[in-house]
Amino acid sequence: MSEVCIRPATAADVPQIVALLADDPLGALRESPDDLDPYLAAFAAVDADPHQLLLVAVRGDRTVGTLQLTVLPGLARRGALRGQIEAVRVARDERGTGLGATLITRAVDEARRRGCQLVQLTSDATRPDAHRFYEKLSFTATHVGFKLDLRAGP
Amino acid sequence: MSEVCIRPATAADVPQIVALLADDPLGALRESPDDLDPYLAAFAAVDADPHQLLLVAVRGDRTVGTLQLTVLPGLARRGALRGQIEAVRVARDERGTGLGATLITRAVDEARRRGCQLVQLTSDATRPDAHRFYEKLSFTATHVGFKLDLRAGP
Repeated sequence: MSEVCIRPATAADVPQIVALLADDPLGALRESPDDLDPYLAAFAAVDADPHQLLLVAVRGDRTVGTLQLTVLPGLARRGALRGQIEAVRVARDERGTGLGATLITRAVDEARRRGCQLVQLTSDATRPDAHRFYEKLSFTATHVGFKLDLRAGP
Repeated sequence: MSEVCIRPATAADVPQIVALLADDPLGALRESPDDLDPYLAAFAAVDADPHQLLLVAVRGDRTVGTLQLTVLPGLARRGALRGQIEAVRVARDERGTGLGATLITRAVDEARRRGCQLVQLTSDATRPDAHRFYEKLSFTATHVGFKLDLRAGP
């Protein structure tokens, strides 16, 4: 089996990233892999923003993992930069191989290199396996994450 | 009592914003209101980033509330923009007046105006009053929020 390479995503990676996002019980309801236009537009916005880093893990010609790191400025904690990790996905047949930990560690290292004092992420409350995974990586579950869906609004 | 005005923060608001951040059991440990330099540098970074909006609520010449809205691009959910709210603070003597709800509603409206499909925030797990507050504003507690403090690392 070929080595995994973790690198910033390019537009050519978008179809395989979308396939990873959609291959998930929650993602299957939310994503539309047959219509890539909104994803390509979103990729262009991410790629143009120096505070965003979309990573892919590639084995051979297959994208087997992805996450997005955002560096957020703010006044709290003496003006600390914080790194935020979102949209973490690992291909089904690559789970349990340590790839997820490698991806998160890479994002944490990048956040540290960019001067962040904190890394934050949220994980769906229905995914206890994911919570154990983040705790093993030294994250602590200190917060409750709230969402408001604006499409469901009045 | 004069009306509350909610508007984008300017550098002149930074000292009073820092005082709000520090006037809190958690904030008292984390902030240094006697040394404004790191906060002014952070304000400059926030102010220069079109995806950031730092709001203040001002009554007369007093800053009585603040929050930060960030608009995050991403591929998930068909390339949905998401609004993220951080660093919400309301002055002690203004709590229970509805000011917090007014501030959050203003941020949600702004997120909608900027095309966000979702607004997200995290709240410290030790603050059940805050959780009820967000639930009353139609947020749902769907996630667990994890943090990793990089200053405590090896």
